[in-house]
Amino acid sequence: MPMERLKTGVEGLDRIVGGIPAGRTMLVTGEAGSGKTIFALQFARRCAEDGLKTVYMASEEEASDLRLQAAAFGWSLEKLEKAGRLEFVELVGKRATETEAVMGIGIQARKGNFGELVKLVPRDTNAFIMDSLGSQTANLTPDEFRDRFDLMIHTLKKRGITTIVVLDSATSHELNDLAMFSVYGALRLFKRENPFTGRRERVMDVVKMRSTMTPIQLLTYEIAGHGLEIVSGPDRSDEKM
Amino acid sequence: MPMERLKTGVEGLDRIVGGIPAGRTMLVTGEAGSGKTIFALQFARRCAEDGLKTVYMASEEEASDLRLQAAAFGWSLEKLEKAGRLEFVELVGKRATETEAVMGIGIQARKGNFGELVKLVPRDTNAFIMDSLGSQTANLTPDEFRDRFDLMIHTLKKRGITTIVVLDSATSHELNDLAMFSVYGALRLFKRENPFTGRRERVMDVVKMRSTMTPIQLLTYEIAGHGLEIVSGPDRSDEKM
Amino acid sequence: MPMERLKTGVEGLDRIVGGIPAGRTMLVTGEAGSGKTIFALQFARRCAEDGLKTVYMASEEEASDLRLQAAAFGWSLEKLEKAGRLEFVELVGKRATETEAVMGIGIQARKGNFGELVKLVPRDTNAFIMDSLGSQTANLTPDEFRDRFDLMIHTLKKRGITTIVVLDSATSHELNDLAMFSVYGALRLFKRENPFTGRRERVMDVVKMRSTMTPIQLLTYEIAGHGLEIVSGPDRSDEKM
Amino acid sequence: MPMERLKTGVEGLDRIVGGIPAGRTMLVTGEAGSGKTIFALQFARRCAEDGLKTVYMASEEEASDLRLQAAAFGWSLEKLEKAGRLEFVELVGKRATETEAVMGIGIQARKGNFGELVKLVPRDTNAFIMDSLGSQTANLTPDEFRDRFDLMIHTLKKRGITTIVVLDSATSHELNDLAMFSVYGALRLFKRENPFTGRRERVMDVVKMRSTMTPIQLLTYEIAGHGLEIVSGPDRSDEKM
Amino acid sequence: MPMERLKTGVEGLDRIVGGIPAGRTMLVTGEAGSGKTIFALQFARRCAEDGLKTVYMASEEEASDLRLQAAAFGWSLEKLEKAGRLEFVELVGKRATETEAVMGIGIQARKGNFGELVKLVPRDTNAFIMDSLGSQTANLTPDEFRDRFDLMIHTLKKRGITTIVVLDSATSHELNDLAMFSVYGALRLFKRENPFTGRRERVMDVVKMRSTMTPIQLLTYEIAGHGLEIVSGPDRSDEKM
Amino acid sequence: MPMERLKTGVEGLDRIVGGIPAGRTMLVTGEAGSGKTIFALQFARRCAEDGLKTVYMASEEEASDLRLQAAAFGWSLEKLEKAGRLEFVELVGKRATETEAVMGIGIQARKGNFGELVKLVPRDTNAFIMDSLGSQTANLTPDEFRDRFDLMIHTLKKRGITTIVVLDSATSHELNDLAMFSVYGALRLFKRENPFTGRRERVMDVVKMRSTMTPIQLLTYEIAGHGLEIVSGPDRSDEKM
Repeated sequence: MPMERLKTGVEGLDRIVGGIPAGRTMLVTGEAGSGKTIFALQFARRCAEDGLKTVYMASEEEASDLRLQAAAFGWSLEKLEKAGRLEFVELVGKRATETEAVMGIGIQARKGNFGELVKLVPRDTNAFIMDSLGSQTANLTPDEFRDRFDLMIHTLKKRGITTIVVLDSATSHELNDLAMFSVYGALRLFKRENPFTGRRERVMDVVKMRSTMTPIQLLTYEIAGHGLEIVSGPDRSDEKM
Repeated sequence: MPMERLKTGVEGLDRIVGGIPAGRTMLVTGEAGSGKTIFALQFARRCAEDGLKTVYMASEEEASDLRLQAAAFGWSLEKLEKAGRLEFVELVGKRATETEAVMGIGIQARKGNFGELVKLVPRDTNAFIMDSLGSQTANLTPDEFRDRFDLMIHTLKKRGITTIVVLDSATSHELNDLAMFSVYGALRLFKRENPFTGRRERVMDVVKMRSTMTPIQLLTYEIAGHGLEIVSGPDRSDEKM
Repeated sequence: MPMERLKTGVEGLDRIVGGIPAGRTMLVTGEAGSGKTIFALQFARRCAEDGLKTVYMASEEEASDLRLQAAAFGWSLEKLEKAGRLEFVELVGKRATETEAVMGIGIQARKGNFGELVKLVPRDTNAFIMDSLGSQTANLTPDEFRDRFDLMIHTLKKRGITTIVVLDSATSHELNDLAMFSVYGALRLFKRENPFTGRRERVMDVVKMRSTMTPIQLLTYEIAGHGLEIVSGPDRSDEKM
Repeated sequence: MPMERLKTGVEGLDRIVGGIPAGRTMLVTGEAGSGKTIFALQFARRCAEDGLKTVYMASEEEASDLRLQAAAFGWSLEKLEKAGRLEFVELVGKRATETEAVMGIGIQARKGNFGELVKLVPRDTNAFIMDSLGSQTANLTPDEFRDRFDLMIHTLKKRGITTIVVLDSATSHELNDLAMFSVYGALRLFKRENPFTGRRERVMDVVKMRSTMTPIQLLTYEIAGHGLEIVSGPDRSDEKM
Repeated sequence: MPMERLKTGVEGLDRIVGGIPAGRTMLVTGEAGSGKTIFALQFARRCAEDGLKTVYMASEEEASDLRLQAAAFGWSLEKLEKAGRLEFVELVGKRATETEAVMGIGIQARKGNFGELVKLVPRDTNAFIMDSLGSQTANLTPDEFRDRFDLMIHTLKKRGITTIVVLDSATSHELNDLAMFSVYGALRLFKRENPFTGRRERVMDVVKMRSTMTPIQLLTYEIAGHGLEIVSGPDRSDEKM
Repeated sequence: MPMERLKTGVEGLDRIVGGIPAGRTMLVTGEAGSGKTIFALQFARRCAEDGLKTVYMASEEEASDLRLQAAAFGWSLEKLEKAGRLEFVELVGKRATETEAVMGIGIQARKGNFGELVKLVPRDTNAFIMDSLGSQTANLTPDEFRDRFDLMIHTLKKRGITTIVVLDSATSHELNDLAMFSVYGALRLFKRENPFTGRRERVMDVVKMRSTMTPIQLLTYEIAGHGLEIVSGPDRSDEKM
């Protein structure tokens, strides 16, 4: 019985890896400006269009800003929201209120509690996007982070929810590495100078994806008119796991 | 409804990205001597000339010195100030007084309180320049910085103020990265040795700008007679987001 | 009397080093996505097929997921399990429960106790796979880790159990180095850009293997249809210890 | 009204940047043996010869040693001292006494107090050289350093004194960066291997200088018979700010 | 009176440096898998065969395992042991017992006490091998390590014992450097990619050896059928100290 | 009145820099095995032969071992000692006793007290060699080190003693840098791979020497039959300060 898979909405990537494993957690990490949020929106839209109940939890931006970004790619999220297939959960206001409270009482009590975040995910959710976890790791030691992150993944898996966790690289390198080991699959997005052409380009590293034939070469992509587009895939001969 | 945009005053940059998103915060970071303050002045002048109520908060320099720098580029800020379209807020004296007080009582009580800074921004401000935030981060842990910086951005967005935050690279790399992830857009200015010519040049990296087609290549610029000038833009084919 | 050896199941590697020394501990370390778990499963299957009582302790994944991964390579583990030659021990649920407990009482009491893990290994075990030790090192100082890791190895050796310990590189570099020195043999799996072809490839470094002729060159491998496959071995002339 | 400028005494540099802005603080930083003290002496001599009341505060060396170094370049400082245009302030003895006291009472009470240093600068001083500040930063955190350094610059500016602060690179990289951002201008002196000739050479980086056209290229200099001499300037086309 | 010397048993090395100074301590450091233990065994065997009373203290391995490794090179240590010329001292069991005790009482009391180790060396010992000191450095600060290591060397020198101390590179870089400065001679073993052939090779750096003409070039060696063998020595012209 | 100078005994170096400034402190720093002690012995012998009262303080080695090393170069130190022109002060035994005491009472009381060392230097000393200061820096913070090191230099200068301080690179990089800034001159000895020939060679960097024309290029040297020998000096045209 082969593993069920979901399309990411990035066509070239779906063709190469066949979509991401259902009911598991994928990590999307990368530099500022690498397109992590666009990837997350593209995935959310695709899931919702494919009829899945999709929840997008945003810690940094308001839903209105995300809708605006989506609109720039010609994606109309409102109709999906109205159809009850896409829901935004905003953490921005909550964080602002907490910060003001913490500054008021002069203590630093907040601790990253991923369990509480997961409780905010509605009961019948199929696909869940957490964008991003980075601002929720406050005051956690690496050991605490590892334990709580693993618990979060474990809980989501038991609920059968396919999850994308976005983690920016401003979060410590150590936490990024820990997260990468715990998840079922991981993508890293970055810019690099092409060693042959001397020009900068956007590349995606499919770091890992269990039970999946993954390309070992980097995939070049562009952020074009309709979202992320893979522009140079691996050779045929590279399609090894 | 496309996003409203403001001109930065750097013509080549405005042509390439179409100006910066209104009502959002942009980060300008970079090395000592990279021209961050000149960029900030150029933006302030352009906003004021475009009829916006513009506030320039200076933590390191006195307004008289900034006027002098502007004058070197042929920019007469005084008439804009008299017209009530440009206002300088100086933090230098305030900081000196605080430092003396802290040294006097022998404790280190000052904590970066970005909220107080925002309260100093007049009610009807359209464009706000904070140059620089670096000297205001005293004694903040990365988690505290992230929370307070995000709160500041959140507050300014609610007030609809287009903001430029200058952050020097003497501020820890970690805080720079955190700031870069929270903002709507970010520019990094630096000097590098051109790998082909072996000569040093000034380059600008448009690290990110949401809802905007950004160049992936570095933009070369000069600090010429009339301010920052982009001298080599990206190819046509690079104008992807 | 030459040392008894076990096949790893990776044919090319077995041909080059003649299998791994029986009754000793081997470390398998490497990056996320390098194939450590596949190597561990391949070894476990081979041991069980060779008639050894094999125990696979999984700290990150559930047995059902591991069976799924094995199935993707055409390995049917269930029949080996039914024959009593392969047994999975899951730590995932145990860890989740512990994490919840620790968060509940608000203390951080858990300490890596490798001794307890070893007690979970059944009496008549011949081959033992610990995948991975990384999540079990919580709160240990390097000195504590070294002592406990050495004690674990010592205990397993006295029981005559051939062991594979998987350690991810998210575990601190320091602990990785310490572990590498204590074990009888160590493999490191990673991806690199081939300096001659400019393409990325998977390579295995046989860092050490006592009493064994080991190749000094890196071994290139692929994760192909039937598991890890060495695709370019060392020259004849390299087969020095 | 263009900014008033002072000659540094390094002819090639004065020709390129037109001298340094009067009444502001310049930082001179660099490696051991890069010629920071020679630069400082050359500037002091030039100021005094130009009729300015010049004060040289030496924290590491005695005035007699500095006179000896100057004499090696054919600079007779004694006549300038006698004319009341150059004055040495020695901190060496003061530091030795303090160190002995601190060791005697077994505590570490000394704190960098730049304010006290500034109080030692006579009332009618025009040019002030602090060589070096490095030994005065004892026990300061980066935040304390930033605050006190900014206060020192602020005070000197209010008194209208043109200042050269020498800071050796043994002072932490972090403090160097902080200082570089606070000052009006900064020079960095170092040795490098010329990438084209493979030979080592001395180079000067005009890191920043506000209100001034600065060369972006490194300036090569030698320590010759009559002090620092620029031997290869930037091309004409480089004379951008 | 030239210094008395002992053969190391590595023929090429003995030919180049003339053996190691008697009554002094040599450090052998290097990466996992570099052959430090083989070097130590080769030296021990040679000393014992040359009629010296030789003691091999093993902190990581049991004597039976070391005999097995030696046998793989055709070295029969048992006859030397029976003749009373070679003795193994095992610390493995001792360490395991200590670790269990420390874990039982929940404290971390063990401190590296090299003095106690030296007391375990029998009275009439001529040659002593400590393999390795790395696991004995628990909880020592660099200053404590330096003091105790120097004391150990001092004591062994007074007793006239020629000593090889093996220190793995998992021990902190700082302790390795400190040890390297205190000893009379030091060898470093590592693998590197030959810059000319692009192939990996084993090399030995004779970092220092007082009163001895040492090669400045790296020595390439192999671990061949009969132990370490130098395969490419320095040119004649390199045989400077 | 030109500065009085002493020959170092390394002929090529003396020819290039004209000897080292009398009554000042020079730092000799470098890697293990770079020849710092040989340089120090060569200098001590030359001073004593030139009729100066010379004191060699040895913290790591006994005088007998140093005499042995000198003898390997054909230097007979005993006659100089008998003539009262060379004296060895051994700190080895003192350090061993202190270490035992500290371990006995279980505290870590020792603090680098350079002042006490200087008191051990006899009244009529002309040249003083401290080999090395590295083992005397125990438990000092960088600030404490800077203060005490400067005080030591200050005291020796007041007594008119020409001093060589040897500092190994196992002492923290930070302390090395601090020392380099405080001294009148500094030499750094190291091994490097010649970028043109691909062979390793010994090189000396005359980092700084006040009041002296110093070569900017590295000087290649060998440790030959009669001590350190400069084998390739700078070109004529490099003899700038």
